Amino acid sequence: MKTIAADDRGFLLGDGLFETLLVLDGRPVFFEAHMARLVRGCAALGLPAPAAEDVERALRTAAAEASLGGGRAAARITWTAGSGGRGLDRPPTLTPRLIASAAPASPAAPAVSLLTASVRRNEASPASRLKTLAYLDNVLARREALAAGADEALMLNTRGDVACAAAANVFWLADGEVHTPALTCGVLDGIMRDRVIAVAGSLGVPVREVQEPRAALDRAEAIFLTNSLIGVRAVSRLDGVALGESEWVRRLSAAAP
Amino acid sequence: MKTIAADDRGFLLGDGLFETLLVLDGRPVFFEAHMARLVRGCAALGLPAPAAEDVERALRTAAAEASLGGGRAAARITWTAGSGGRGLDRPPTLTPRLIASAAPASPAAPAVSLLTASVRRNEASPASRLKTLAYLDNVLARREALAAGADEALMLNTRGDVACAAAANVFWLADGEVHTPALTCGVLDGIMRDRVIAVAGSLGVPVREVQEPRAALDRAEAIFLTNSLIGVRAVSRLDGVALGESEWVRRLSAAAP
Repeated sequence: MKTIAADDRGFLLGDGLFETLLVLDGRPVFFEAHMARLVRGCAALGLPAPAAEDVERALRTAAAEASLGGGRAAARITWTAGSGGRGLDRPPTLTPRLIASAAPASPAAPAVSLLTASVRRNEASPASRLKTLAYLDNVLARREALAAGADEALMLNTRGDVACAAAANVFWLADGEVHTPALTCGVLDGIMRDRVIAVAGSLGVPVREVQEPRAALDRAEAIFLTNSLIGVRAVSRLDGVALGESEWVRRLSAAAP
Repeated sequence: MKTIAADDRGFLLGDGLFETLLVLDGRPVFFEAHMARLVRGCAALGLPAPAAEDVERALRTAAAEASLGGGRAAARITWTAGSGGRGLDRPPTLTPRLIASAAPASPAAPAVSLLTASVRRNEASPASRLKTLAYLDNVLARREALAAGADEALMLNTRGDVACAAAANVFWLADGEVHTPALTCGVLDGIMRDRVIAVAGSLGVPVREVQEPRAALDRAEAIFLTNSLIGVRAVSRLDGVALGESEWVRRLSAAAP
């Protein structure tokens, strides 16, 4: 088992970032997009960024060690600020660490049920737009959803506007248009979110990036989630209410590999 | 150097808690209060709690290993959810880990300057009232303060109300009364915060737990910070404006060991 130093700031304070990638037949999918987001995240947190070739090598090694063979796998890159002294302040010289892991991807559920969690997304922190090692709010939101018998949590932000799921971006169809929360709502700029926006455009359906309260979803014709591992996934229930199916969700799933 | 497994959920997701304690001549101060808060935090996160005797033993061992000798030292207990599989969900059986460390306490500054950070405290998450391993917002707030030449960050919550400093509770004196943000503002129930409230009461000065905007501090006669390591510490400047000294800050510092 790999280890990290117990004085690592990623461990002690959540000072670091991660990326979750789909690996198809041993090859990371949309690697450049994930790498670019990791570099943007490092800039936002004031961390140096890893070299792309080091990240790619670590991913390849992790995939080989996990003996995944062919098919779909999930990989994770963790980039932490590294060892530091006591307290919040980073040491004068940072020694960030790169850790990669890979595992078979869980079989995808055909559709997921959502529960609106009480834990809110903090749109007033840059961390709400990044995949940081401080992901506890998402853990707590997911726990709340599972405890209520749902599969995944819908997170509102502190203004009460729709933000995202605990581990996915959210989209909905209303009035013949596709809607998704704007990044300013406190959501990750998902790689699959970008892909869906591009594919929708190419199909002649504009995607509106919106700031809308939870009530907007009660008028939605269909809701779906996106992330790099699940691709595009329909939502079957929201807070116990069954949702319709939409041909558009199937068509937009062409965005996913 | 101690290590932890690279699949530890504290490292990967911030799924865990910590406590920072003052150690005086080898003895942890207010141990029972810190232990009680750790147990409450575990209940809030749905984690099993460590046994008090294990925590005390780990603290003693860490203090001995650090060869602190006499005087003031800072100790930290980290309690993480332990190893887990991929993704947000905890494994069916948790194997939490306990890590303790100790270091000489930094010499205390006589007074600190504060800068109001742009990063907000998320009062809509239970994590805002706990010392969790997802402490990145505090790291970012502190960075902002240091970059502007201040010593510490003042954090507002997402409603714009005063919450706390990045690593301390905040109090202020106004109209002959002591004010501090209510816990519902998204602040830690600090051990020293409790002590100051008790000591103020015994001196005949009531402490009002309030929900007040940043502007309330412009009318404050004096501002001070509290935590287990610094005790009670006067604020000399807030956002560049010099603040008065108060005899009350000196008297309330009797709350600290």
